[in-house]
Formats: sequence, structure tokens, C-alpha cells
Amino acid sequence: MLEHFNSLSKFVLIVEYDGRHYFGFQWQSGQPTIQEKLEEAINHATGETRRVLAASRTDAGVHARYQVVSFRSGSRLSPQILIKALNFYLPHDIAVKNAGIVENDFDVRSDAISREYEYRILNDLTRSPLLNDYAYHVPWKLDLDAMNEASKFLAGEHDFTSFSASSCRTRSNIRNVFAAEFKRNGSIICFYIKANSFLTHQVRNTVGFMINLGSGRSSIDELKRILEEKKRGLGGPAVPAHGLYLTRVNYPRHLELKYENLFN
Amino acid sequence: MLEHFNSLSKFVLIVEYDGRHYFGFQWQSGQPTIQEKLEEAINHATGETRRVLAASRTDAGVHARYQVVSFRSGSRLSPQILIKALNFYLPHDIAVKNAGIVENDFDVRSDAISREYEYRILNDLTRSPLLNDYAYHVPWKLDLDAMNEASKFLAGEHDFTSFSASSCRTRSNIRNVFAAEFKRNGSIICFYIKANSFLTHQVRNTVGFMINLGSGRSSIDELKRILEEKKRGLGGPAVPAHGLYLTRVNYPRHLELKYENLFN
Repeated sequence: MLEHFNSLSKFVLIVEYDGRHYFGFQWQSGQPTIQEKLEEAINHATGETRRVLAASRTDAGVHARYQVVSFRSGSRLSPQILIKALNFYLPHDIAVKNAGIVENDFDVRSDAISREYEYRILNDLTRSPLLNDYAYHVPWKLDLDAMNEASKFLAGEHDFTSFSASSCRTRSNIRNVFAAEFKRNGSIICFYIKANSFLTHQVRNTVGFMINLGSGRSSIDELKRILEEKKRGLGGPAVPAHGLYLTRVNYPRHLELKYENLFN
Repeated sequence: MLEHFNSLSKFVLIVEYDGRHYFGFQWQSGQPTIQEKLEEAINHATGETRRVLAASRTDAGVHARYQVVSFRSGSRLSPQILIKALNFYLPHDIAVKNAGIVENDFDVRSDAISREYEYRILNDLTRSPLLNDYAYHVPWKLDLDAMNEASKFLAGEHDFTSFSASSCRTRSNIRNVFAAEFKRNGSIICFYIKANSFLTHQVRNTVGFMINLGSGRSSIDELKRILEEKKRGLGGPAVPAHGLYLTRVNYPRHLELKYENLFN
């Protein structure tokens, strides 16, 4: 038994997905989820029934360019072959971009030192057919300077209870925000935020508040007051999921993966 | 009668569309086309039955970020209201981004001095769920320097018969290419080409040839020979439509449109 356990390797996958047609990462009875599709593909590729663990559990409709997922397996497939096999079985809106074998005690969740998310806003008078499904449309001009001035007050350690969802159940609501900034590129405004981890709906509530602020309907004083009150529902409103992307998960040591730099 | 004719204005629209679900711009019996949807929306918005004319007729599946379309109308709707009305009636994958009234003798096709297209290649080992439908996947490394070196030979006036489709029926196959260049941005390679106008399938056949060249399967000598032979079918193969975007149409004078610079 011990021998069998020792023969299992820990695989790490970098996964990209279009979240539109999924009820989020985590398994839900009777609903399509990223986890379900990954576990089905692993079952097809290895013959094993395995649970996968994700570094950041994305909500329904949220996309990921760089989700980190792990699972144990007795499979002797090389990471390179595993990538090809999984992509063969996965639906077209989920793909494994990279894979590797890590030490058995590596934990994709607790070892992660930071997560990065992006929220895309289409800030244009008219909707955009090529971006509709991948950015949230705000058809009036936003004051980006005001939004960035306010974003400075998000940086550092704060209790973000006011920006969390009622469904959020965590031991502590204190999070350490390392960076928070809006950047405009043509009609697209991208909000970039990096923190040790995030509360449920934290990014979407934050962007919703900042859009109000950038529309002259809120202020930095209001932001300070809301943060201090530590009361669910004060931040927000949450913007839709389809503008949100998990873009990176960072670890103390660089993950050694099969395809790193092959194309650069 | 003359009075009635004179009371018609010539409207110009800037149109963006996701071409995936359309059989190209031009009307085709029994198939969804961009032209059909625009004419239906104009009918709903103005009560008039009008023909629209496009600056560049895009093929089935091809996208446009900046298509220029014109039609005559007796409508007294302001361009600003017309934009809103048309976007209300248009399907979500077509949108009017801008509108204006131009002089009656302005011709979106013959007055255009150049068209610009982009072709997007996903040059990565694995497919990408967030780009699948909007870029052509080439899963081996392309030699961009070689492709750009060859692209220089496309510039200037040439007979592009070898890069045209068999369905292409034009008086002359000579076109003047003003610019042709590949640029890499991460795993995306973007081919940018500007010419007075293009033959049917010219961009897609050109990109297909250049991908072969960037894969070591063709050469600049071969490109010169193919151009000189002036024989349909020698260039190519045509790459799929879903990577192609009409990005701009230029006129001798700047089009004066309603929403120009409002957000900048």
C-alpha cells in the first residue's frame, strides 16, 4: 500500500479556459464545471479516477489564462504526452498549456504566494461584436485618473469584508493587495490586481465600486469609509463575470514545466 | 421626382462584426450575411427598403473591425440616433460603431484609396480557448525574420493572379501593396497588409504561402517565381477565414463622423 502511494507522482497543469459555458471551476452536481471536464479528461488519458485541485477557484463565467491545477497519478506518461492526451479529450474551450511533475509535498493552493486577475471593460459608446463576450461594456467615459488615485488605497493589508460576497466563508477577511491599477488601451480599460489571495467576488465588487467612482457617483472618502465598516454588501455592485480573467499564480520557486520558453 | 431624389441623404456607417456565423458580407439567397442584417436593421429603423454598399466585400467567416458601408435614405434621423436605432435592431455580433452624412457623390468603394487587413496566427504548441475562434493555430515555431524578408517582395505594384481565388473576376489583377509585415506579440503573430485593394482570397493565400516559407517549405526564389508565373492556384494554400480582419478603409479626405474622438 505504501509502495503504491509512493509510486504516485504529483502532476501540475497550467490550464486556460473560456469560462462562458461553465458554472465555475469547482465541481457542482448536474452543472458543467472546469473541474469535471479536467477529471474526465484525466480519466480518459490515464485510466485513473483523480481529484484535481486548483490554485484559485474561479466563479461561474470567469475565464482563466493561467490557472494552476494539480493531481496525483500513477501514470507514466511524460508531461509532454500528457498535455497532448488531455487536450485531445478536453472540450475546445478548455486547454492544458503546460504540465510538469513536482515534489509530492507541493500544494498549488497553500504554496501560492500571489494570484493575479484582470478585469476588462469596453469603455466605448457602442458595443463591440469582437469583444462583447470578453469585456464589460460601459458606454460613458470613465475618469481613469480618479479610479487609479482611489486604487492606491486598496494596496497593502486590509480587511476586505465589505467587498466580499455573502457566500464567502474564510477564517480571515484580511488580504494583502500588492498592486491595483487601471490601464487604458484604445477603448479597452484593463484593471490589473495582484494579491496574496482574494475573497469571493472581491475583484468584481472592487471594479463595480471603481466604475461608480470613475462615473462621479462615489469618492475616495466613501472607499475609506466602506473599507473601515467591514460589512458585506457595502462594496460593489459586482460587475459581470465575463470580463474577469485569472492571469497568473505565483510560487516561491519557479514552476519547472515542460514547455517553458520553447517558443521564445 | 427630382425633388424626392434630392431629398435623399447619403449615410456612411462604420461597422464592426464577428464574421463567424455569416456567409460573408454580400447578400446570398438563403444564407445569413452581414448585408442582409444591415438592410433589415435599416428597414426597421427608417421604414425604408435600402441597398447598402460595402468598401470591402469580406468572405464567409471573415471579421471586420472597421468596415465602411453606405446607403441612401430620406430619413431625418441624426447619425447619433441612427447608430442607436441600428444597434438596437442588429444581432449582437454586428454593430454600427459610427455614422455620418456624406456628399451625394461619395462612393465608399471607388473613393477608397486603400484597405488594411490583419491576419492573426496563434503560434503556440497548444491551442488557446480564449483565441481559438479568432486566430489560426500553427503549432510549430515560425521563422518570422524569413517571413518578413519575403514580405518585402510583396510591396509595390504586382500582378497577384497567382494569389487570387478561381472565383476572382476583376478587370486587372494588378494591385499596389503599400505595406506587408509580420509582428509577434507573445504567442500571437499578426500579419498586417495594406493595399489599394485586394483580389479574392489574396490575403489568405499570401499568409498560407508565408507560413510555408516560415516553416522552411518554401523560399523567396519560389515567391518570385510564383508571382512571375501569374497562374491561379500557385500561391497559397489559403489559411482559414477566422483569423482574418478588415481593420481599416482609407479615403483621400478624412470621413467626418459623429463620434470621432469623443472618448479620447
